[in-house]
Amino acid sequence: MVWDLLLDNAAIKAWAIASLVVALKTLASGVYTSAIRIRKGVFASPEDYRSQGLEPKSGVDDDVDRSRRIHLNDLEAGVPFALVGFIYALTQPSTLGVWICFAGFPIGRILHMITYARGMMPARTIAWSIGFVITVWMAVSSLYSLL
Amino acid sequence: MVWDLLLDNAAIKAWAIASLVVALKTLASGVYTSAIRIRKGVFASPEDYRSQGLEPKSGVDDDVDRSRRIHLNDLEAGVPFALVGFIYALTQPSTLGVWICFAGFPIGRILHMITYARGMMPARTIAWSIGFVITVWMAVSSLYSLL
Amino acid sequence: MVWDLLLDNAAIKAWAIASLVVALKTLASGVYTSAIRIRKGVFASPEDYRSQGLEPKSGVDDDVDRSRRIHLNDLEAGVPFALVGFIYALTQPSTLGVWICFAGFPIGRILHMITYARGMMPARTIAWSIGFVITVWMAVSSLYSLL
Repeated sequence: MVWDLLLDNAAIKAWAIASLVVALKTLASGVYTSAIRIRKGVFASPEDYRSQGLEPKSGVDDDVDRSRRIHLNDLEAGVPFALVGFIYALTQPSTLGVWICFAGFPIGRILHMITYARGMMPARTIAWSIGFVITVWMAVSSLYSLL
Repeated sequence: MVWDLLLDNAAIKAWAIASLVVALKTLASGVYTSAIRIRKGVFASPEDYRSQGLEPKSGVDDDVDRSRRIHLNDLEAGVPFALVGFIYALTQPSTLGVWICFAGFPIGRILHMITYARGMMPARTIAWSIGFVITVWMAVSSLYSLL
Repeated sequence: MVWDLLLDNAAIKAWAIASLVVALKTLASGVYTSAIRIRKGVFASPEDYRSQGLEPKSGVDDDVDRSRRIHLNDLEAGVPFALVGFIYALTQPSTLGVWICFAGFPIGRILHMITYARGMMPARTIAWSIGFVITVWMAVSSLYSLL
C-alpha cells in the first residue's frame, strides 16, 4: 500500500517523528498557558472569570503573555518546519541531512522554550536560530531539487 | 498514479475531508472577524478607517477581540490536528479510530466556535477538549507505530 | 520509490514550489519584525531590552505591530493554503487549475505584504482576496472530488 511505503521511507519517517514531537510541544505550550491563567487567575474572556468564581478584570499578566508568545512562536516556527520538512523529505535528501534537520529542529525548539521561559538572552536567540537555519536550508535545498 | 492511490486509502480520504472542513472553518473565522470590524467600525490599521470614511481610533472592541481569539485558537488546534492526523492516517489506523478522530475533531471545533461566540463555560472547555484529546491520542498512537 | 513518484506528479511539484515560497515569505515576515524591533528599540520581553543595553519600556510601536499583523496574516492564510493545496493536488486537478492556484497564491501574498506594509487600501483587500478565493475554490473543488 502507498501509505505503508511512504512511512517505509527513512526520511519521511524521520520527518513524521520530528513533526509529532513539535506538534505535542506546541500543544503543551497551550496547556502551559492555561495552567498559568488558572494559577494566577488571569483570563481572556469574562465568562472564564465567572466559571472560576472571580470578578472579571482587565490588563495583562507578564507570565501569561510570555507563555502566549512562546505558543505563537511555536506556530510561527513549527508550521514552516512541518511543511518544508515534508517537501524536503520527498526530495531524496542525504542521511546526514535528514539526521541534522529532523533531530536538530525539535532540540532547537525545546531549548527555545526553556530559554524563553527563563528569560535567557542571547541563549534564546541562539536556540531560535537553530530551527530557523534548518528550515531555510531545507527550503533552499528543496527548491534546488525541484527547479 | 501515486496521488490517486493515496486518496484511494480510506484513512487518508477521511483525513482530507476533515482537514478541508477545518480549513474552511478557520477561513470563516477570519471572515467573521472582518464582518464584525466593518459592522462596529473598529479596525487594526489607520488606512482601514480612512477607507471606510472613519476617523482612526485606538482601543479594543470585545467582540472583535473574541473573534480574533476564536480564529487564533483555530490555528493553535487545527495545525497540530492536520499535521498529526496526516501521519496517523499513514500508520494503518483502525476504521473505528479513523471515524472517531476525523469525524470527532471537526464536530468538536464547530462546538468550540459556537460555545466561544456565546460565552458558554464550561461548555467551551469541554468542546475544546474533544479536539485536544483526539490530537494527543493520534500523536501518541502514531509515535507508538513509528518507534 | 513512492516519494520519488509523488514529486514526479506535476500538481504535487507545483504545490511544493508554491508552498516553499509561501513558507520562506512567512519566515521573512518574522525576520522583518525582528529587524524593526532592533532598529526602533521596541521589544516584547524585558531581557530583550537588557541584551540591547536599553531600559525596558511598555507600550506598542505602530510599525512593529503592523509587521506582527502581516506575519500573523501569513499564518492565517498560508496554513489553509498549504493544507488545502496538498489535498487539491491529490485530486487530479486540471493543468490550468494547478497553474492559476499555485502561481496565483504566492503572487497574491507578496502583493498583500507590499500593500499592507505601505498601508494601501483597498489594494490590500484585493490582494488578500486573491489568496482567499483560490483557497476556498480549491477546498470546494476537492470536497466535490472526494464526496
